[in-house]
Amino acid sequence: MPTQETLIPLSGWRRKLFVVIFEADTRAGRLFDLALIASILLSLVSVALESVASIRQSWGPQLKVLDWMFTILFTIEYVLRLICIHKPLRYARSFFGMVDLLSILPLYLGLFIPESRFLADIRVLRLLRMFRILKLTRYMGEAHELKRAMLASRRKILVFLVTVIVLVIILGTLMYVIEGEANGFTSIPIGIYWAIVTLTTVGFGDITPKTPLGQGLASLVMITGYGIIAVPTGIVTAEIARNTRATPTEDQSATRLCPHCFTEGHDRDARFCKHCGGTLPAPSRSN
Amino acid sequence: MPTQETLIPLSGWRRKLFVVIFEADTRAGRLFDLALIASILLSLVSVALESVASIRQSWGPQLKVLDWMFTILFTIEYVLRLICIHKPLRYARSFFGMVDLLSILPLYLGLFIPESRFLADIRVLRLLRMFRILKLTRYMGEAHELKRAMLASRRKILVFLVTVIVLVIILGTLMYVIEGEANGFTSIPIGIYWAIVTLTTVGFGDITPKTPLGQGLASLVMITGYGIIAVPTGIVTAEIARNTRATPTEDQSATRLCPHCFTEGHDRDARFCKHCGGTLPAPSRSN
Amino acid sequence: MPTQETLIPLSGWRRKLFVVIFEADTRAGRLFDLALIASILLSLVSVALESVASIRQSWGPQLKVLDWMFTILFTIEYVLRLICIHKPLRYARSFFGMVDLLSILPLYLGLFIPESRFLADIRVLRLLRMFRILKLTRYMGEAHELKRAMLASRRKILVFLVTVIVLVIILGTLMYVIEGEANGFTSIPIGIYWAIVTLTTVGFGDITPKTPLGQGLASLVMITGYGIIAVPTGIVTAEIARNTRATPTEDQSATRLCPHCFTEGHDRDARFCKHCGGTLPAPSRSN
Amino acid sequence: MPTQETLIPLSGWRRKLFVVIFEADTRAGRLFDLALIASILLSLVSVALESVASIRQSWGPQLKVLDWMFTILFTIEYVLRLICIHKPLRYARSFFGMVDLLSILPLYLGLFIPESRFLADIRVLRLLRMFRILKLTRYMGEAHELKRAMLASRRKILVFLVTVIVLVIILGTLMYVIEGEANGFTSIPIGIYWAIVTLTTVGFGDITPKTPLGQGLASLVMITGYGIIAVPTGIVTAEIARNTRATPTEDQSATRLCPHCFTEGHDRDARFCKHCGGTLPAPSRSN
Repeated sequence: MPTQETLIPLSGWRRKLFVVIFEADTRAGRLFDLALIASILLSLVSVALESVASIRQSWGPQLKVLDWMFTILFTIEYVLRLICIHKPLRYARSFFGMVDLLSILPLYLGLFIPESRFLADIRVLRLLRMFRILKLTRYMGEAHELKRAMLASRRKILVFLVTVIVLVIILGTLMYVIEGEANGFTSIPIGIYWAIVTLTTVGFGDITPKTPLGQGLASLVMITGYGIIAVPTGIVTAEIARNTRATPTEDQSATRLCPHCFTEGHDRDARFCKHCGGTLPAPSRSN
Repeated sequence: MPTQETLIPLSGWRRKLFVVIFEADTRAGRLFDLALIASILLSLVSVALESVASIRQSWGPQLKVLDWMFTILFTIEYVLRLICIHKPLRYARSFFGMVDLLSILPLYLGLFIPESRFLADIRVLRLLRMFRILKLTRYMGEAHELKRAMLASRRKILVFLVTVIVLVIILGTLMYVIEGEANGFTSIPIGIYWAIVTLTTVGFGDITPKTPLGQGLASLVMITGYGIIAVPTGIVTAEIARNTRATPTEDQSATRLCPHCFTEGHDRDARFCKHCGGTLPAPSRSN
Repeated sequence: MPTQETLIPLSGWRRKLFVVIFEADTRAGRLFDLALIASILLSLVSVALESVASIRQSWGPQLKVLDWMFTILFTIEYVLRLICIHKPLRYARSFFGMVDLLSILPLYLGLFIPESRFLADIRVLRLLRMFRILKLTRYMGEAHELKRAMLASRRKILVFLVTVIVLVIILGTLMYVIEGEANGFTSIPIGIYWAIVTLTTVGFGDITPKTPLGQGLASLVMITGYGIIAVPTGIVTAEIARNTRATPTEDQSATRLCPHCFTEGHDRDARFCKHCGGTLPAPSRSN
Repeated sequence: MPTQETLIPLSGWRRKLFVVIFEADTRAGRLFDLALIASILLSLVSVALESVASIRQSWGPQLKVLDWMFTILFTIEYVLRLICIHKPLRYARSFFGMVDLLSILPLYLGLFIPESRFLADIRVLRLLRMFRILKLTRYMGEAHELKRAMLASRRKILVFLVTVIVLVIILGTLMYVIEGEANGFTSIPIGIYWAIVTLTTVGFGDITPKTPLGQGLASLVMITGYGIIAVPTGIVTAEIARNTRATPTEDQSATRLCPHCFTEGHDRDARFCKHCGGTLPAPSRSN
């Protein structure tokens, strides 16, 4: 349990800022979220367009400017987050704090390091920031239900995956021995790669068996892959079917965030964080 | 509720025409529907054949004539629909009214605009007209059940799709960084396109990873895609399994259409539209 | 109901032959079935090997002889079937009678028609003869259960298939318009073929979109295809889950065949055919 | 029931060794298992790397040394297993005894037979040794549940597979007849191979139909394959859904092994093997 001094609630403009930036219960908070989603998506589109050679040649400088604009915008937002939160350092070290930093850092680092091409592509992690906002929506009930079904069947899925991996290693080695380097199976790892491509029914066709024996084994692999896809489906379906009876209750207050430990899911009438005991800001509905 | 004057029921030949063209309860109505389906399918076959270069060279003029014949036929039908319906303008602005117009317009516009090749292909939308007739069949119960299962699970499917899209964007960018332009991953959008092709187990093979690291990541993507296909299947299966207990009742009168507001699903003994209060034409079974 | 004279039961050696050839309740009958399955599979292997150019060159004459041997064997069997059955003509016109004839006819016709290559491949239909024997096994319970599940959901599957076909026609036309003949989409039928290849997640890669717009639409098609595969799976799963509660009863006497109308599924203690009223031969267990 | 003399329990250092090598209930036993898993995986990585041409050229001798080190290590382990077990011959003839031998034999044989390249790849079977250790973990409950679901539906899956195989043979022959050798369908077996590639939605694209008729039939095959994947999924799902109600009980003592007959699953308080009556070594938890 933290000491009392760390739990002094925020007040004044910092508190108002906190409610707007970190929560989604007020009109201003929702508007801020929408603006943020729009900025993230637009910045991603600009990053994606910049990677296309022909567009980079014609619109390079304009996209560069746009990129700096978004970076400065996100920098301001990052600073505001640090200011209005009670414990800036704890925020900076949290998962979303790291993601926020990673979305702005690459461009600044690029000023010092010349060949920052791969660095720049880290900006695509901005996408992860959207999950913070999605966490505040009423679709969380469904997401939690799916997550619960996945978690409940994670051990069965693990057993299934280990079996698949062992199968793929043995089949890949067999194909390497049967087909040999002349037919594209240049090594055991390539054979395993081919076995994964085939068993999962992806079938790129960049490497294909040429000998009758290889084609026979491939046929077996394909029919096996076609059959065992039923297993994960069966596992997850059985789990979801069991859960769909109980309907998830939508909790509007799921958008409240503890300013001390950044946990969510606090009840509407909660006054203290159930995880760290810190005081929660009141849910100010009117704005 | 509409005023009385707009609800004056059709009478005489216009009413008879209405029952034949818009409904499927009478023998004449069913014959009309069958003839219409046949015309639509034949006209589509002619459109498809015309697109094949070798056939266009040998049979071009004949197909042109056939095309005009169908267009004139559908024009007559469109005019008849406008005549026999109580509110022609409302019909013209309804979804199926638009589709009907779009199936005949391209050829007339092609007389004025020379390069109407792409315009002409809009004719394939004639296919949508078949749904109007399919709506009148007794397979509607099954269609509704599937639709209900899809609607009931639409939020879970949305959550799943958003996760897949985020995954695909991050994986596509990663592959672009790893493989680079030399191996076909020429830009981030192309990387995302590849990630979709791979995650959905389609696997065209037009772009494939060449580096060991890229093949390793691709293997991960494939196994993930193989595993998470279980999720939508589980969602829909659980929903259908819940619904299959209640058997859908077949309602023959589902083919009755209100001439005033174009709604369907009126009971066999209904005399007035349950949506707009307009008088429904009697279901004249004998013809 | 047939007249009495047609229902005179077979007797003497013809009856014994009937029990051996048409039924599987006696030891001789089971041995005959095993020998027949072996002959069918061997003859199919010889047909398949004959189609391989390199094998045909080295072993052509030997395979030719083998082929004639099997054909003569099946001819003798066909004649014996005609002899021991009560109504030879009715048998000859039944489904399996036709299949039996089609398995031996091609080679004889080949004597008169020189270019009988395609004719010869009709021999592969011999495979269908195996189903007659499989019908006599105790796996029929499972087959019936699967068939029942398929039949019970056939209307939902039909609705699903019609939707898929309409989707595929519209998407194929769209891709033809977007990509054009330069990128391999040479006609609307080819576009539809591509849409089927993509929507079913097969993904040959012989035709792939090249333009950004085409790749965008293709991405949509793939995600759609990935999602809607859940629908048939959900339909069939729900149906099978409903049926698995009741265990199918194994009926050993399912192998009894009426010599008059060739129907099966007669009870062990039945003396007359439940379909045509004809006398059934007694199930002679000892041999 | 075995005679008393064969059931004399091991004692002294051999018994201690037995508990460490064959069981996982003690700390030493668990450490031994972890070390073994690490050795197996490392030796497999070295086998896989050795198959890559570029790595073999630069690191060939080092990998050779590593390979011999692992082989000697596994040889020592094999000898220790023979020493500490009560009936060495029975162990040597058991499944895992054979796998253990096969993991070390190839390299020794390679000393006498020069071209041992394919022999060497048998070493990949070392992977199977991992299953012995996996058998000792608490994931066995899940594995058994999946196995039970598969076994319970094995007859339905067999019926399904036979139908798929018959379908594939007939479709492959048809495609061979339609497309012919000019379009890559060089023989009936190749046609069948193509049909499997297509029906299972793998779609390599190494062989694709070129004629309109062939593409039409291929479309049918693909839609069929897309539809019938629902069948195995439905079968397995229904079976798993039925089983998931009962939760498997985790039995820690599943890791105890009878030194006489090599059976597992003995209760924690069992003093004698429930299969052969032999004395079980006490589960020595402290070490």
